[in-house]
Amino acid sequence: MSGASHDLGYLPKTRVEAFSDGVVAIIVTILVLEIKVPRLEGDRLDDQLLAALWHALPLVGAYAVSFMVLLVFWVAHHQLMHSLRRVDRNLLWLNGLFLMILAFVPAPTALIGEYPNAVAGSVLYGAVLALAGLSFAAMRIYITRHGALLHEVVPAAAARQAVRKGLLSPILYGLGAALAVVDTRLAWGIYVIVPLIYILPGAFDRMPHQSLD
Amino acid sequence: MSGASHDLGYLPKTRVEAFSDGVVAIIVTILVLEIKVPRLEGDRLDDQLLAALWHALPLVGAYAVSFMVLLVFWVAHHQLMHSLRRVDRNLLWLNGLFLMILAFVPAPTALIGEYPNAVAGSVLYGAVLALAGLSFAAMRIYITRHGALLHEVVPAAAARQAVRKGLLSPILYGLGAALAVVDTRLAWGIYVIVPLIYILPGAFDRMPHQSLD
Amino acid sequence: MSGASHDLGYLPKTRVEAFSDGVVAIIVTILVLEIKVPRLEGDRLDDQLLAALWHALPLVGAYAVSFMVLLVFWVAHHQLMHSLRRVDRNLLWLNGLFLMILAFVPAPTALIGEYPNAVAGSVLYGAVLALAGLSFAAMRIYITRHGALLHEVVPAAAARQAVRKGLLSPILYGLGAALAVVDTRLAWGIYVIVPLIYILPGAFDRMPHQSLD
Amino acid sequence: MSGASHDLGYLPKTRVEAFSDGVVAIIVTILVLEIKVPRLEGDRLDDQLLAALWHALPLVGAYAVSFMVLLVFWVAHHQLMHSLRRVDRNLLWLNGLFLMILAFVPAPTALIGEYPNAVAGSVLYGAVLALAGLSFAAMRIYITRHGALLHEVVPAAAARQAVRKGLLSPILYGLGAALAVVDTRLAWGIYVIVPLIYILPGAFDRMPHQSLD
Repeated sequence: MSGASHDLGYLPKTRVEAFSDGVVAIIVTILVLEIKVPRLEGDRLDDQLLAALWHALPLVGAYAVSFMVLLVFWVAHHQLMHSLRRVDRNLLWLNGLFLMILAFVPAPTALIGEYPNAVAGSVLYGAVLALAGLSFAAMRIYITRHGALLHEVVPAAAARQAVRKGLLSPILYGLGAALAVVDTRLAWGIYVIVPLIYILPGAFDRMPHQSLD
Repeated sequence: MSGASHDLGYLPKTRVEAFSDGVVAIIVTILVLEIKVPRLEGDRLDDQLLAALWHALPLVGAYAVSFMVLLVFWVAHHQLMHSLRRVDRNLLWLNGLFLMILAFVPAPTALIGEYPNAVAGSVLYGAVLALAGLSFAAMRIYITRHGALLHEVVPAAAARQAVRKGLLSPILYGLGAALAVVDTRLAWGIYVIVPLIYILPGAFDRMPHQSLD
Repeated sequence: MSGASHDLGYLPKTRVEAFSDGVVAIIVTILVLEIKVPRLEGDRLDDQLLAALWHALPLVGAYAVSFMVLLVFWVAHHQLMHSLRRVDRNLLWLNGLFLMILAFVPAPTALIGEYPNAVAGSVLYGAVLALAGLSFAAMRIYITRHGALLHEVVPAAAARQAVRKGLLSPILYGLGAALAVVDTRLAWGIYVIVPLIYILPGAFDRMPHQSLD
Repeated sequence: MSGASHDLGYLPKTRVEAFSDGVVAIIVTILVLEIKVPRLEGDRLDDQLLAALWHALPLVGAYAVSFMVLLVFWVAHHQLMHSLRRVDRNLLWLNGLFLMILAFVPAPTALIGEYPNAVAGSVLYGAVLALAGLSFAAMRIYITRHGALLHEVVPAAAARQAVRKGLLSPILYGLGAALAVVDTRLAWGIYVIVPLIYILPGAFDRMPHQSLD
């Protein structure tokens, strides 16, 4: 600490990476805790349970969509960290902001699962994921402006292109949030498609591992 | 990212492994959160509490069974990863699908613990574990078809045999789910026996660590 | 897997260690989730809240005691693993059994925190911790009988002594559970003292790091 | 264990570090579980939901503040561990005490989020964070008195200065808790500002990474 006998000007990248991995692993796993056991009473337990499970289908769908989105973010985050040589103080806090928003995702996931037709919930879900995308884009922009953090120099044109691509997912999530006002099913369509763009092989696959760029 | 100065065509296996281990460690540990403290009021607290604990016995049983199943999957997953030299994009998402299904297990566990006699819950429990087994089998099949991911070439006959064995557990879980319609106790019998097949020493033990193969 | 081109007869100790550490880290951290926010309504919010916080004091005490117990088990487990050269199949499942019991601790913790005067809860708490201690002792006994797993040969007399010492904590917890039938406060006394025996410097300190031996 | 063929007098620092990192990663991630989905019934779902989300704003604010505080503690803890050569038995338990208090933070976070105007909740929040800061200061004081644990000798004057600085955050949190009695908004002001002191670049930035010293 004071006296700084060890060089603390740069934190070891590996610890930030491990910490972020841990946080994402926990987020995806606690998503399931939002799916509560229904309280059933009285006769015809099985009929009641089937009705409750039917009612829980949107929650299971929301679980699967959020799980996919978080995995895509994890892969993208992993690749960003992989390109780094070190992490400075500002990047550490930008990463913290990104994790803070990502760790919030279970809350709107539960909300759209419980009330799939409510506009406010669908807007919030898209808004939170757009913010997650924006905070991730902020990390990318910061890194391109502080090339010394990178393993290798990235040409200015390539860096600009990466930043532009990084804005695709927040724009799509913002669009989804806006469409939710018209019809929540349109928003859901967007929310299901966005992670699949990065997961499914296809046009994007020709650019291997461009996840969320 | 773009420009791909680092080879991102293959993700480091160690991170996928650590991430998967983390997810499984969290799943087994949050299982207990499904066991809620009973709300008791009025007189004779101890009598009420004993009744509540008696009522919670199936939940504790479901906890133990799911804990065992998840440990068996963890060992099997660990061994599969151990045989790999690297992880490609498709395997990454197959692994994500496997984790998504596994991370869902606490929900049906709570369901069969709370309503042990309900058919729908017992069917769901078996179905989710069958899906987990199938998604794990899908990883194995993918790997045998992409031998470059493996440390060493596996003879075609041995690979086919491994895939066939890998289908044993989803078939047993599917059978359990089907038997639940007849009598939920039959399903429970299957669900208790399947992990024990892999855990208890015996016939299977002559094939050391063939867990869930 | 099949064909066993890699030696899977012994699992890497480091992964079992990391997995166990992860499980314990999660157990201690989710303990707090058993402390629920009180539902308050109407006037005089602050008076109500103070009353609710007063009511929650045993829960906070139970939280602290379980946190300590789990840390002591973690240190003891760590030391046991440290003495090992490798982990075989049987030890893997014994370790799984130990973790399964340990991961159950949040449930009786919430129970004795919520109903500190209920005999059944206090008995259950002691019984679960006695079982955890017994399963840990089972690991130690197994290891002393399979010396090839150890880094160095332990003299038979020393091994027997370690096993005997390892039975101290389950015996104390069993005693606590028995005393709970007389008076739950006696049980609490035991439950508070047992982890402190290992934590506080004193007579035990002359045997450095004999935690839970 | 007994016989101590391996030197267990000092635990490997890396495991304590990894364990602590894991606990903090879990704490920040389960914070979101305190934000519950509102129970809505009847007509005008969207109006009800908007009202519920408005009501949940303080909870989201409390989530963000606690997330920041915990990240700052994590960075400070990381730096403290980085300066160490090894961890002895006493430091292990001091670290356990620090983690125990930190892992408790989600409870008062939920409390001030749910009842932002209640004095008792605001006092408790500040008190818990002051205790966390004090237990962290205790670790620092212990280390300065046991220089053999450090990588390099720290001059006595610098060590005293570090300890004095380390008392800044518990004093500020104590002040916040005291101000809560006057007006809970004053306390919130303090609670928001303290982590920002360490995060925002500025006067403190000239001392790079002096987080929470």
